[in-house]
Amino acid sequence: MSQRLLHTPEGVRDLYGKEYAEKLYVENRLKESIHLYGYEDIQTPTFEFFDIFSREIGTTPSRELYKFFDKDGNTLVLRPDFTPSIARCAAKYFWEEQVPLRFCYLGNTFTNTSSLQGKLREVTQLGVELINDPSAEADAEMISLVVRALRSTGLERFQVAIGDVEYFKGLCEEAGLDEETELDLRAFISGKNYFAAQALLEERGVKEAYQDRLLRLADFFGDMESLSEAGAMAGNERSQRAVERLERTASLLKLYGVQDYVSFDLGILSKYRYYTGMVFKAYTYGIGEAIVKGGRYDRLLQQFGKDAPAVGSVMVVDSILEALSSQKVKLPVPEAVRTISYSGDNYCEKLAEAQRLRSQGIPVKLTGTAGK
Amino acid sequence: MSQRLLHTPEGVRDLYGKEYAEKLYVENRLKESIHLYGYEDIQTPTFEFFDIFSREIGTTPSRELYKFFDKDGNTLVLRPDFTPSIARCAAKYFWEEQVPLRFCYLGNTFTNTSSLQGKLREVTQLGVELINDPSAEADAEMISLVVRALRSTGLERFQVAIGDVEYFKGLCEEAGLDEETELDLRAFISGKNYFAAQALLEERGVKEAYQDRLLRLADFFGDMESLSEAGAMAGNERSQRAVERLERTASLLKLYGVQDYVSFDLGILSKYRYYTGMVFKAYTYGIGEAIVKGGRYDRLLQQFGKDAPAVGSVMVVDSILEALSSQKVKLPVPEAVRTISYSGDNYCEKLAEAQRLRSQGIPVKLTGTAGK
Repeated sequence: MSQRLLHTPEGVRDLYGKEYAEKLYVENRLKESIHLYGYEDIQTPTFEFFDIFSREIGTTPSRELYKFFDKDGNTLVLRPDFTPSIARCAAKYFWEEQVPLRFCYLGNTFTNTSSLQGKLREVTQLGVELINDPSAEADAEMISLVVRALRSTGLERFQVAIGDVEYFKGLCEEAGLDEETELDLRAFISGKNYFAAQALLEERGVKEAYQDRLLRLADFFGDMESLSEAGAMAGNERSQRAVERLERTASLLKLYGVQDYVSFDLGILSKYRYYTGMVFKAYTYGIGEAIVKGGRYDRLLQQFGKDAPAVGSVMVVDSILEALSSQKVKLPVPEAVRTISYSGDNYCEKLAEAQRLRSQGIPVKLTGTAGK
Repeated sequence: MSQRLLHTPEGVRDLYGKEYAEKLYVENRLKESIHLYGYEDIQTPTFEFFDIFSREIGTTPSRELYKFFDKDGNTLVLRPDFTPSIARCAAKYFWEEQVPLRFCYLGNTFTNTSSLQGKLREVTQLGVELINDPSAEADAEMISLVVRALRSTGLERFQVAIGDVEYFKGLCEEAGLDEETELDLRAFISGKNYFAAQALLEERGVKEAYQDRLLRLADFFGDMESLSEAGAMAGNERSQRAVERLERTASLLKLYGVQDYVSFDLGILSKYRYYTGMVFKAYTYGIGEAIVKGGRYDRLLQQFGKDAPAVGSVMVVDSILEALSSQKVKLPVPEAVRTISYSGDNYCEKLAEAQRLRSQGIPVKLTGTAGK
């Protein structure tokens, strides 16, 4: 036998026993919280046409997609992300709907990365999308839902950092940056690579005052007051409106009573191009990556022919589990299943006992003691 | 916008609303039944190395696998079937275990077929494997579990047809067939293509008496008595032992009280090569394909270095749903979620009401009436 036959490909894994029981527990708790907000389950295929995840709609670079072909020669892609699929599905089946639509989904996403650094290539995500609602109330619902869902798993020490890409876009507009420069800058700032950001702005001959504002973006974080300062500083209406919107959302989050779990950070700029307003990431101790990511994407559904605002979030189940484990949060241990043993001559009686317990909803393993 | 952007690839689909709620309901009922028998959840990756599904272990022809590459040039395959993955996983993590192991899993499988004929290319399966138990008691547990699980969904009009590949193998041995002929014959008989089976046997110059027995295989179906006749007719011990084993299983199934849901059929020969003893398929009205398939595979784990007998079954969730729908079995309709509407001036109060209900476990949609 080839030893290789025992192994899974790198970046994907088997789960069983306590570890998988905990994963299912966490998934169920998260789902329960989401259902309490009236979100409806939806399922899309594991793979889609390549176009759904193309650069324009774009989340993941093409080289990091798992691509393959069907019998008709179409290029298919294992979904790297759910949001474009859900947007496609909503545009297809709910294109006439004007009322708010609430969807949630649970499944795996796939990225064909070459640098693993401990990252998984198959990741379980639980996502939530609220479509047809442009309001700050919708933004606040999304954040409060994330807080409630995370807390329901037993996690307490986390923070949701909220920004708004409109603030950044206002500054870029003000500075006269073209789209390409804006995207590059966004990537640098997202990656906290300020030297590259500064070099880029200098190379493009951006005025120093504008450079300053753009590079100081990441300094504005903490409570709402530090953001107001940023609003006052911005010389353009678009950025100011973004701060006002965040202030409105902040006041709604107080009504939800979740203000202790949120902070604000104008340096949060998702690398996902489809976000148009609020963006957020939830972080916790012991995990470098965000455990939840989300934001507003008011123009994504247009790509699929439905002009509808939307806000969504995706909870990375595997990372939440990692956080719970590293913070030693105790999850309920599944009860050991009762075993009833039979030998050759009492099978009939032991089977009857097992069946009686099962009919009462009690799990039982029925196991022979001989003949193995 | 390209119209194509709205579509899923052929053979895969979106599920939402009542249809998906019903699927989740059925999955949960099936899982509950399986858990009552003490089976433990396990999860394997969506894709594996090609070798896991190679011809030797073999379930699906290579041309029907979705194949792609990782960054290191390994050929990966979307799983067409769970059993080899579970066998790999059991051999890897439980290779020293001697006690019976019970695993169950839920997930999607993928076949890149060219002739769709209404078949899906992504199919949800719920599977069960009982490893390290060679007994007829284990066979009976598997069948009774399948019956209980199917009944738990509301399905009543189904039959589990049970055969044993050993009977067929005994006849082949008796007739002196080589392995290749045996496999071809198996495929013809499985496909109920008796003309091809006869032509093959004639071409191979098989004696008429043996031809007769092999071609009469499919005539032996119904209750246990018709099988005993087949046992008496077979001129070899191997086939006779297979019938005796089925008789033993049948008597155990009476103890479970599921005899009305089972029948016997020596013509049931899975195209999957790994089965070594009992094989079965559950059929129901209105669906041509089996809704559950399974059997004993005592040598599959050897391929992964663990010498352990095993019996398993896979329930095809999508087909079970199709059966429930075509038989108009009523599934519980999920309750409509309560909606609380706010206007600009009463948000605070309506939010408090929604949060109060949610804290009591009642799902609520909170929706604005203005400003949309």
